Amino acid sequence: MARTVVTVEGMTCGHCVAAVEQEVGAVPGVTGVAADLETGLVTIDAEVEPAADAIAAAVDEAGYRVVS
Amino acid sequence: MARTVVTVEGMTCGHCVAAVEQEVGAVPGVTGVAADLETGLVTIDAEVEPAADAIAAAVDEAGYRVVS
Repeated sequence: MARTVVTVEGMTCGHCVAAVEQEVGAVPGVTGVAADLETGLVTIDAEVEPAADAIAAAVDEAGYRVVS
Repeated sequence: MARTVVTVEGMTCGHCVAAVEQEVGAVPGVTGVAADLETGLVTIDAEVEPAADAIAAAVDEAGYRVVS
């Protein structure tokens, strides 16, 4: 199992957190996602480390942006 | 028809706006709701003017607060 942590910009409320978790959670191979509103950190567990651009695309789909 | 405008505190994004519009829109007699993220103003159209506490309760249900 692989754990990846990215920083997401623009989440301002619990709805934002839920939107990011839902989109990132739908990336193939992802088994768990936890986004933190205060820090912007999104912790992603997956079977194998997901492609960074797949995560970035999912975050973008939710309406936010991976900054690191 | 009656139009009521209230100010809601705490909306930070489009999801918040949608949540407020959905809950207030479900108040009996309400025919239209438009919430503005920038100003916090929520404009409510209804058959007859709705009770202020019914609107306040709906906003509270969405997770926000009427301040005026």
